[in-house]
Amino acid sequence: MSNKLKVVVSRDLGPDVMPLLLDNKELDVVVWPHNSVCDRKWLLENAAGASGILVMLSEKAKLFDAAGPSLRVVSTMSVGYEHADLKELAKRNIRFGYTPDVLTDAVADLSIMLALMAGRNTKETTEIWPNFVWSPFAFCGPQLSTTSTSPKRTAGFIGFGRIAQATLARLVPFGFQHCLYAANPSTPADPAADAALAAKYGVRELRRVLLAELASESDVVFVLAPGGPATYHIVDEKFLRAMKRSAVLVNTARGTLVDSDALAKALHEGWLYGAGIDVVEGEPKIGADHPLVKAPRCVVLPHIGSATTDTRIGMATLAANNLLGGLFGKDMPAELNTSR
Amino acid sequence: MSNKLKVVVSRDLGPDVMPLLLDNKELDVVVWPHNSVCDRKWLLENAAGASGILVMLSEKAKLFDAAGPSLRVVSTMSVGYEHADLKELAKRNIRFGYTPDVLTDAVADLSIMLALMAGRNTKETTEIWPNFVWSPFAFCGPQLSTTSTSPKRTAGFIGFGRIAQATLARLVPFGFQHCLYAANPSTPADPAADAALAAKYGVRELRRVLLAELASESDVVFVLAPGGPATYHIVDEKFLRAMKRSAVLVNTARGTLVDSDALAKALHEGWLYGAGIDVVEGEPKIGADHPLVKAPRCVVLPHIGSATTDTRIGMATLAANNLLGGLFGKDMPAELNTSR
Repeated sequence: MSNKLKVVVSRDLGPDVMPLLLDNKELDVVVWPHNSVCDRKWLLENAAGASGILVMLSEKAKLFDAAGPSLRVVSTMSVGYEHADLKELAKRNIRFGYTPDVLTDAVADLSIMLALMAGRNTKETTEIWPNFVWSPFAFCGPQLSTTSTSPKRTAGFIGFGRIAQATLARLVPFGFQHCLYAANPSTPADPAADAALAAKYGVRELRRVLLAELASESDVVFVLAPGGPATYHIVDEKFLRAMKRSAVLVNTARGTLVDSDALAKALHEGWLYGAGIDVVEGEPKIGADHPLVKAPRCVVLPHIGSATTDTRIGMATLAANNLLGGLFGKDMPAELNTSR
Repeated sequence: MSNKLKVVVSRDLGPDVMPLLLDNKELDVVVWPHNSVCDRKWLLENAAGASGILVMLSEKAKLFDAAGPSLRVVSTMSVGYEHADLKELAKRNIRFGYTPDVLTDAVADLSIMLALMAGRNTKETTEIWPNFVWSPFAFCGPQLSTTSTSPKRTAGFIGFGRIAQATLARLVPFGFQHCLYAANPSTPADPAADAALAAKYGVRELRRVLLAELASESDVVFVLAPGGPATYHIVDEKFLRAMKRSAVLVNTARGTLVDSDALAKALHEGWLYGAGIDVVEGEPKIGADHPLVKAPRCVVLPHIGSATTDTRIGMATLAANNLLGGLFGKDMPAELNTSR
C-alpha cells in the first residue's frame, strides 16, 4: 500500500496545469483518459479511497459514499456549483473549491458579443453574401448603441454579481446610462450600495427592481444568476411577453433559467427582437432540431463563456490549487463556505 | 413642360423618408422601382434633365454627361465617396452631399462585435451543439479583455477618424490602454492632438506609427480608412505576416483595403488568429467559394456596418435633406468641400 493521497481528476487539464498534480510526489493521480465527458461509472469506481476529487460542471459532485471517509476535498473547475450537494459536504466536513473571478472578464466579453450578435441578426447575416441583395433597410434591427432619435438605453440584469457588473462596465461607452437588476429575494435591498455602484460605473440610474419592471424597461436583458431550483425558468412566457419588441435576451449563465420553448415561441412571434444564448437547458444533448437552434434571430453557442486559453488555464490552475490546499489542510485560494 | 425640378433616386428610401421628397410639390421624383441594385442603364436614361440625383455606394456617381447642365447636386447615402468623381463635381460646380457621423456608432458597434466573434471563432462555434464535445480547452483562443497573465492590450487602427475613435472608446473597459494608428501620410503628425485624445479616452498610450509597427504590436487591427487607390491592399501579405499569431483583424471599412487572397492564406497558415470582415473586395458578387468565406476563423458579413433601423433612417434622411439643400441653393446638412 502506498502512503500517497489518491486524487481523481475527471478531465485532463492539459500540459500547463497537470504537472501541478502529476509532479507532486505525495499524490497518486488518476485522470479520466478520454476526450469526452467523464463516465459516471468510471468516476464512482475510481473515487473509492480518494482524498480529493476534481470535477467539471458535467459531474454531479455527490461522490461521498463512493469515495468513503478518506474524502477531504472536492474541487470544481467552474464558478457555478449547482451540481454540488453543499449540505452534505458541510455535514461530512469535506472542503469545497470553485473558480470565481478568474472567468469574469471572459464571460462579460461573451455577453457583450451575444447582445451585439442578437441585434445584428448574425444567425442570418453570417456568410449570406451569395444570397444577399443589399437594400437600404435589409437586416435592419435595433442598435445596441444610443442614436440621436433613441438616446436612452437600459440594461437589465437578472443577477448582479461580478460578471453582470463587468458587463455593465463594457456597456457604458455604448451609451447605456440606466441599469436595472433583479436579485435573490432573500437578500435585503441596499440603495446606498446601489448608489455607490452607479457612481463607480458612471451611470445615471442603477436600481434593484422586480422582474416585471426589468422585463418591460430593458433594451437588453442579461441572464447572469446562478442555476438551481430557485432560478428555474425565471425567464418564462410571462417574462418574455413583457419585454420590448426591440429588446434582446442574452443568457450566459445556465440554461435552466430560461424556458427554451417559451423563448422559441417568443422569437417566432416577435415578442422580442432576438436572443444570444451560450447555455441551453439539457445541454450538451442539443440537436439540430432543438427549438432554439431553429428559432429566428437566435444565436446559440456551445457554452463557451469562459473558453479562452488564458481563462481556462486560470480556472484549471485555480481548481488544481484548491484541490492541493484542501488535501494538505492549507488555505484554498477559492474555498466556498458550505455551512452558510 | 413642368416647372418642377427632376430628381432621380436610385433606391426606395422607405415610408419614413420618401415623403420628404415625394410630398415636395416643387419636385418631380423618379425612383428606381425594384428591390435590387439600380440598373446603370435605367439610371443614365432617367438622369437626363435631372437637377438632383440621390445614389447609393453601388452607383458610380459619374452622371454629369447623362444629367446634362441641369444637374445641381449629387447626394450619396454613404459616408464613403470613393464612387464619386470629386474633381469633376468641383469643376462643374455640382454640390455633393454624404452621410458622416450618423453611422459612427453603428459601425463602431459592429467593429467590436467582429473583434469578439473573430476571437471566439463563431464561424465554428455557432450552433455546433449537435457535433460538439466539451473539453477544458476546446475552441479556446485569445481573449479580447485583459487577463491576469496577459494584462496588456493594444488596439491598432488603420485610419483614425470618427468611427475608429468611437471603437476605441468601447474598447477601454475591455482593458485596452494602448492605441496605435496609421494615418494618411500626407497629413502631418500632431503629438499634442494625440495626447489630448489619449486623455479624452483614458488610455495610457496613443501614438501614430508606421504600418509595420502597427501590425506587429496590435492585439486587434481595425481597418477604418477610406477606400480608393491610396489605400488599395494596404493590408497585404507583408502586413499579415508581421501580425501577432494571437491577433485578429477587423475590416468594417472597404473591401479594397485588404488583399483577400493574402488574408485567406494567413488564416489557413495561422499568421494571425482570426478575422471579422464586413466588406469584401468585389462585393456584392461574393460566392460560397470565395477564399474568405472558406477560410478558417473568418467571419464574413454582408456590409451591414450601418444596418440598424435608426441609423439607416438617419442616413436616408440626411441624404434626402442634402439633396433638398442642394436643389434649392440652401445649406446642405453634410456637404463635402470638393475643391479641397
